[in-house]
Amino acid sequence: MDLTQVLHMNGDVEEASYANNSLIQREAISLATSARIKAITNLYCSLCPRSLDIADLGCSSGPNALLVTSEIIKVVEKLCQEINHKSPEYNVFLNDLSGNDFNSIFKSLDTFKEKLCNEMETEMGPCYFFGVPGSFYGRLFPNNSLHLVHSSYSLHWLSKVPRGVDNNKGNIYITITSPSNVLEAYYEQFHIDFSLFLKCRAQEIVEGGCMILTFLGRESDELLSNGVCYAWEHLATALNDMVMEGIIEEEKLNTFNIPNYYPSPSEVKLEVKTEGSFSINQLEVSETNEHALESNISESLTKGTRAVIEPLLIRHFGESVTTEVFDRFRKIIKAGISKERTKITNLTLTLTRKA
Amino acid sequence: MDLTQVLHMNGDVEEASYANNSLIQREAISLATSARIKAITNLYCSLCPRSLDIADLGCSSGPNALLVTSEIIKVVEKLCQEINHKSPEYNVFLNDLSGNDFNSIFKSLDTFKEKLCNEMETEMGPCYFFGVPGSFYGRLFPNNSLHLVHSSYSLHWLSKVPRGVDNNKGNIYITITSPSNVLEAYYEQFHIDFSLFLKCRAQEIVEGGCMILTFLGRESDELLSNGVCYAWEHLATALNDMVMEGIIEEEKLNTFNIPNYYPSPSEVKLEVKTEGSFSINQLEVSETNEHALESNISESLTKGTRAVIEPLLIRHFGESVTTEVFDRFRKIIKAGISKERTKITNLTLTLTRKA
Repeated sequence: MDLTQVLHMNGDVEEASYANNSLIQREAISLATSARIKAITNLYCSLCPRSLDIADLGCSSGPNALLVTSEIIKVVEKLCQEINHKSPEYNVFLNDLSGNDFNSIFKSLDTFKEKLCNEMETEMGPCYFFGVPGSFYGRLFPNNSLHLVHSSYSLHWLSKVPRGVDNNKGNIYITITSPSNVLEAYYEQFHIDFSLFLKCRAQEIVEGGCMILTFLGRESDELLSNGVCYAWEHLATALNDMVMEGIIEEEKLNTFNIPNYYPSPSEVKLEVKTEGSFSINQLEVSETNEHALESNISESLTKGTRAVIEPLLIRHFGESVTTEVFDRFRKIIKAGISKERTKITNLTLTLTRKA
Repeated sequence: MDLTQVLHMNGDVEEASYANNSLIQREAISLATSARIKAITNLYCSLCPRSLDIADLGCSSGPNALLVTSEIIKVVEKLCQEINHKSPEYNVFLNDLSGNDFNSIFKSLDTFKEKLCNEMETEMGPCYFFGVPGSFYGRLFPNNSLHLVHSSYSLHWLSKVPRGVDNNKGNIYITITSPSNVLEAYYEQFHIDFSLFLKCRAQEIVEGGCMILTFLGRESDELLSNGVCYAWEHLATALNDMVMEGIIEEEKLNTFNIPNYYPSPSEVKLEVKTEGSFSINQLEVSETNEHALESNISESLTKGTRAVIEPLLIRHFGESVTTEVFDRFRKIIKAGISKERTKITNLTLTLTRKA
């Protein structure tokens, strides 16, 4: 399976869509606000670009897609006023895989621009928007063409399911019972992907340019220290039950693995250091507690999980089973949720392109 | 009605889609090939840019969307080989209104790039693609950011239905029976739109940069000298019949007018001269004969007309009537087609941005 052809968040604005079920992602964006403001301020004050080229990698669709862009522009406009600079021209590049619902972002742009203009106290610089389809595990932009790269809740997606994890039987992600080669294969894929990501961006970002990355991670080197791992375990339970009842073939389940990796701070630091083009300004660990966000946690966790993973499930198991998978998942979550850890760990990394 | 929110070619790859019914447009693209090759050769040899920024304005979706882009790249690659230059980096900007089906173009890009690479004898320069939603009757790109702008079969779309054409009763376009104020209003809208188009592009295109525009026009100043006008007359006949039978309200028909204008060579020249930023290299009049293209002309003319005008009809008359409109249109065409002019006149204009 070529993941770049299949992976996308659920499109459109339907009940099961990513647009309507991305509160956790929004919370993570908001947790990283102060790190972003600091990074943008440094960037603008050191480079003072007449035109500011901003990329959002893995923008998805829905209300989160333009949230950070609007924040960035507001920060820069405020700075320009304070230091009495002319507003720059903004070029905003919205990237995601080609299966993403770009049509729906594009249709929302006029309203977005109007709202942004209305919120400004002074007249802002002109603002141009571009959609950029393709995997960020490859080149997307010309050499030295970007000042600021932002990515939120995308980099924990690997470019593909690691090879050699066929013996991770009954599991769909790394668990406590996974054989050691499975852990190694996942880590190796993270290493390949993350270093390639850094290498590509190093060519695209100007000297002194900045990158702000928020993704799911772990607070320590302990392997399962992210609440999302529990969600995958519960999803595996639902799928295993369906195998036992003969609804899903065992072979199908054994060949399904989630192409995510949640790195620890030290794993991330090692990759940045080894690649060598960026210096780390800040690496922040933050936690989102799902209980605090939602009154109906089992429902929202089910919908949120469905919005991000349904296209992969459909591709692997067929369209007919997915509703049942998530009905079972909801019941399992409901029964178990109060007893266990539901804290989600986010890493926010700000990097500067070295001279 | 805000045309920029409504106008788009029929999306996707269904039977009624633009993708499957755009042979006339393809023929027009092919007629302008030699003018394009000349313009691209001049451009490349005079500017020798290390990175070539190309925009296709009104790219639509389907097989035509990337046809010219691939031709441009092939011409430049051949030139580079001949004069022993390193291939430039290509940045391709695909523009259309935000209602266009960008998702389907984006999904076709990987196949397109692969095919293009395979067709090249030598390794071509890297190629980056960007989608740019918005009206070309406004700014779309930063200052001095484009080398080559191309637009095919889009510029005869006005930004809106001209004001003050309410007395064009029973007609949906300029006809022999239209009151003189209707002709004036259409011409005035063309003047406003085309001059704004030139003004915006003048800011976006670098000195010495080039623009290649193909659109429906007239061979002379005679008002109805384009076969497309007959298609609109037949569509008006179908709609008038439905008014008489009480299926469509008369008021609805009276307020429907096609937002197109087919300028004559002298009208185009006047606008370019008045705006002043561009010099005309070539203004070519070519003709497409629909009979020569299609064995089943009434069917293809019906489908072709439907693919470009259906979204506007649906918006104005509602979804329920459009199938019947085109059934009637097909019958009218079938009865009348052999007796009348079906030649479509295209203008191809190549311009250079003055220093």
